[in-house]
Amino acid sequence: MGPVSLLHLPHHDGSPLYVADEAPVLGTTVPVRVRTSAEDPVRAVWLRTTYDAEPVYVEMQPAADGATTWWEGGLLVHNPVTHYRFLLERPDGSQEWLTGAGLVGHDGPDAADFRLAAHPAAPDWGRDGVVYQVFPDRFARSAAAVDRPSPDWALPAAWDEEVAFEPDDPRTPMQLFGGDLDGITEHLDHVAEVGADILYTTPVFPGESNHRYNATTFTEVDPLLGGDEAYARLSGAVHARGWRILGDLTTNHTGDTHEWFLAAVDDPEDPHRSFYYFADDGTYACWMGHGTLPKINHANHDVRHAMVEGPHSVVGRWLRPPYDVDGWRIDVANMTGRLGPIDVAHEVARAARATAAELREDPWVIGEHNHDATGDVDGDGWHGTMNYSGFSWPVWSWLRDPASPARPFGRPLPVPRRDGATVVETFRAWQGTLGWRATANSWNILGSHDSARIRTLVGGDGALHRVAAGLQFTLPGVPMIFAGDEIGLEGVTGEDARRPMPWDRPESWDRTTLATYGDLARLRRARPALRRGGLRWAHADADTIAYVREHGSGSVLVVARRAAGPAVDLPLPAGVHLFGSEPGGADLVAGAGGVQVPVADGPRLDVWALAAE
Amino acid sequence: MGPVSLLHLPHHDGSPLYVADEAPVLGTTVPVRVRTSAEDPVRAVWLRTTYDAEPVYVEMQPAADGATTWWEGGLLVHNPVTHYRFLLERPDGSQEWLTGAGLVGHDGPDAADFRLAAHPAAPDWGRDGVVYQVFPDRFARSAAAVDRPSPDWALPAAWDEEVAFEPDDPRTPMQLFGGDLDGITEHLDHVAEVGADILYTTPVFPGESNHRYNATTFTEVDPLLGGDEAYARLSGAVHARGWRILGDLTTNHTGDTHEWFLAAVDDPEDPHRSFYYFADDGTYACWMGHGTLPKINHANHDVRHAMVEGPHSVVGRWLRPPYDVDGWRIDVANMTGRLGPIDVAHEVARAARATAAELREDPWVIGEHNHDATGDVDGDGWHGTMNYSGFSWPVWSWLRDPASPARPFGRPLPVPRRDGATVVETFRAWQGTLGWRATANSWNILGSHDSARIRTLVGGDGALHRVAAGLQFTLPGVPMIFAGDEIGLEGVTGEDARRPMPWDRPESWDRTTLATYGDLARLRRARPALRRGGLRWAHADADTIAYVREHGSGSVLVVARRAAGPAVDLPLPAGVHLFGSEPGGADLVAGAGGVQVPVADGPRLDVWALAAE
Repeated sequence: MGPVSLLHLPHHDGSPLYVADEAPVLGTTVPVRVRTSAEDPVRAVWLRTTYDAEPVYVEMQPAADGATTWWEGGLLVHNPVTHYRFLLERPDGSQEWLTGAGLVGHDGPDAADFRLAAHPAAPDWGRDGVVYQVFPDRFARSAAAVDRPSPDWALPAAWDEEVAFEPDDPRTPMQLFGGDLDGITEHLDHVAEVGADILYTTPVFPGESNHRYNATTFTEVDPLLGGDEAYARLSGAVHARGWRILGDLTTNHTGDTHEWFLAAVDDPEDPHRSFYYFADDGTYACWMGHGTLPKINHANHDVRHAMVEGPHSVVGRWLRPPYDVDGWRIDVANMTGRLGPIDVAHEVARAARATAAELREDPWVIGEHNHDATGDVDGDGWHGTMNYSGFSWPVWSWLRDPASPARPFGRPLPVPRRDGATVVETFRAWQGTLGWRATANSWNILGSHDSARIRTLVGGDGALHRVAAGLQFTLPGVPMIFAGDEIGLEGVTGEDARRPMPWDRPESWDRTTLATYGDLARLRRARPALRRGGLRWAHADADTIAYVREHGSGSVLVVARRAAGPAVDLPLPAGVHLFGSEPGGADLVAGAGGVQVPVADGPRLDVWALAAE
Repeated sequence: MGPVSLLHLPHHDGSPLYVADEAPVLGTTVPVRVRTSAEDPVRAVWLRTTYDAEPVYVEMQPAADGATTWWEGGLLVHNPVTHYRFLLERPDGSQEWLTGAGLVGHDGPDAADFRLAAHPAAPDWGRDGVVYQVFPDRFARSAAAVDRPSPDWALPAAWDEEVAFEPDDPRTPMQLFGGDLDGITEHLDHVAEVGADILYTTPVFPGESNHRYNATTFTEVDPLLGGDEAYARLSGAVHARGWRILGDLTTNHTGDTHEWFLAAVDDPEDPHRSFYYFADDGTYACWMGHGTLPKINHANHDVRHAMVEGPHSVVGRWLRPPYDVDGWRIDVANMTGRLGPIDVAHEVARAARATAAELREDPWVIGEHNHDATGDVDGDGWHGTMNYSGFSWPVWSWLRDPASPARPFGRPLPVPRRDGATVVETFRAWQGTLGWRATANSWNILGSHDSARIRTLVGGDGALHRVAAGLQFTLPGVPMIFAGDEIGLEGVTGEDARRPMPWDRPESWDRTTLATYGDLARLRRARPALRRGGLRWAHADADTIAYVREHGSGSVLVVARRAAGPAVDLPLPAGVHLFGSEPGGADLVAGAGGVQVPVADGPRLDVWALAAE
């Protein structure tokens, strides 16, 4: 007998086939299920949960369905985030644990336990949507923008000028290309073509830089972008399409030209002094040692009130007209409220979300965390994170061209090229600690304004780029596309990635890839399995990764190839071909042992609708 | 070339050779080191830490020492518990992480990061000591005890009577054998023979059961045990030997006959009502549904004050004469302060430790946690835990006799028998999340009054029992011996394990094993490596586990065998034989490739002092 197929291993995830209620009321008991196969049998299964940190076991009851057995037990949601895992007894008496990170053959800590949170779920529109990220200075200029005078601090740049991006180049933050909000409004048809329905712009507050993460005030939209009126036009146009719009707010720090900070520096008695961490000698805490970015002291309730708490806070005011944002992407959320022994990060996140919930029916709040967001999501704060660790880096490590000039983001070495099986282990590890719901509500990003472009990372190979996009739209999580990715823009760093959209050079566009994004977005919208389905790994070798998104309305199979490869046999029912990132692709016909995914002659990603088992 | 020896793998742990300061001041930079070998080379090493949850990298500097390279870098202790790990670049450009759980070939969450805590360390006497656990009713009767009348609730038992232990047997908690405190005082020479120097007794408060975990008051010692005077005599005798004594307090609940609870039930207006979680209908929260054990409401500051906070609390009063305890073992510490959405567990732990620190120079506070104590230790609360998960169960799973009648504790199935390599993975997993210092300050227990006896677990095999004891004294952690283990007492459950010490049947004692405990305690005391040294795994196969405890004053090699086995080659310097759990054992002579640990003809554990490398 050969090795057991991944599809025959005992399985559980947080999707509806396995967890009856994804956002239960505290104190209720939720039926949960484990699926096992006659090909890899178990004798008994216990659900183990912790009750106020004490382990409790519930024996699960089996129900056979052909070669599959579904084990069911009741999970008491006693704590707001309830941990659980499964103890499997094998026919030979050996024992294994089924955890969020997969099967484990020894006892171990709870870090990778499954978890079920009693806090309200994220809004459906977020979970089911596709996010398009715009960096306003570089997206599009309206007619008004072209004539707008530049401020003193800026170095005006022509739209086709090369982007300065080296960290030691003083032009890097000062080069102003002059994109504005009406420019975005004028190009919403393009966003529609990409298939997105949630517009997320990086900051629009005035700030003395092209990125505007160093706000000078939170009271208005930068006049250089068209001011409040232009924002209202954009927000209105977005909503008129039935779409949503997200703001971007840095809660960790302000710019040193911010009105609060200037008041604090001018007068040590000014109430704004307590908004920051000033020492007696006048020095102050700042972001990673950058004196231009003074850190906000969220242990102080006045600043929390000014920034995140209540309808009159920054978070609150923008959720109402004229801005009318549907939620926020919170910049540097990981560090917000944390400084040495101080840690009020969760209080800040909770306040921001509560404020949003007070003002809108279904707001969405995503925290930036370019590292390990475990513990900072799945509570009553951020609904999810920008999932660099759990999505971007594993995808990068599978698809990167070793010769790519793409530079690392947040680490001293580039992500190394790794094999598919290792990459699947990486996905498992992150999904295991982030938890199902937080993973599903986090953003699958192939890059952002802070990282190299995916196109550069894969060595400029359009087919590999489309495989990456396929993973972005078919793995659990919400796709977020940094504007320009869809037409093959390049960039070796985040700053270099902020190249202006070449509206004036349509011949430079990769229209094949653009069409692929649109196809993937339509596919994701049409198939609940891709938005809400579970995730069962089907196959992983160096160059091939396959998985099933399992859902009651119909499951789909995804097979991703980073290179040409042989046929792959999978114990699955027949499949109807729905999508291929390259030409070709046919239905899968069921034989005795399942189906055979055909030979691939190069990088490609295919999706099939599976017949009912 | 064969596989790389475990001893050649890159290594770091929290011991002095690798971390310059185990309890640094917040804000200081501590030199940390990684050891690599020419047999498994690396090209570069970065120390990665998190600074307010943001990853930060420091490139480490290599210094060659023969075939070994020591990489050094400065770890900024910016947060009270600072996480770190190492990024290794291999000569072929591949990357690995060195984490607390070992080498990992892919990126992953922080759960197994190394950690360095800026909170004060546990007292040396605790870390360097050997704990002897006494269950007062079953240890020894003084002359006074023999004549003491039994209370109404009790079923008086003769010392040689069989212990009732079935959960449904009403005699189980009521059988009173009549051991008392003067009985313990009279037998301290026996404790000395075992080699212990810290006496820990389970509760001595009055309580209507033989285990006294359901206290009726915290104001005095049970008169059945001899009262306050007897406790003072015991405490004085322990201290006169230069030893220490620990109390046992349940902070999670009281008995339903406790004076606080009776007052609360009698009068809903009584201030003690708020000490518990009463609902409007008069029902109340209790331990795991047992109405006789009402749960303490630590969200209420009055009860926190009465129980753990300040010199007049229970925790405080017993740290002073006449009781004069040197610290506490806190019962059900894991659940204390936790109930559904309420979680003030850390506040309670912090208060208990602060109270102890206020009253004694160097108190020790250990929290019971029979599950995953990660996150509840390493802070400023409990110094450590009773390490069932990280020590007992892995040892049990390696050494258990599959036919043993020993029943599981806290899980529905017995711990299964597993191979040595799996067991080493288990140790790594727990050490990786508990952290070095918390592991070293936690209790290595082979069993307790709550579990089956180790002797029963290994099927009554004395040689295997001595291997278990060898692991207990030579792995990181503080040995805690449940009285009777040292003479080979048996028991299939915790209740059954509470068999009276057979002082009157000396012929039943396993004196070989008793002598082994004494030898191991002396060895541990004589060798700083066994108390403070690092831990490098040297070898693991099904029946053999070997490790080096590495220390500047001289390292030792430990080789444990659960069965006869072949010689094992290890790339180590010569070794002087210090200890063998069975007769035989010789020095190790260094050859070209290292030393050869000889064939074993059955279970045994040996320790050698290694020559300097």
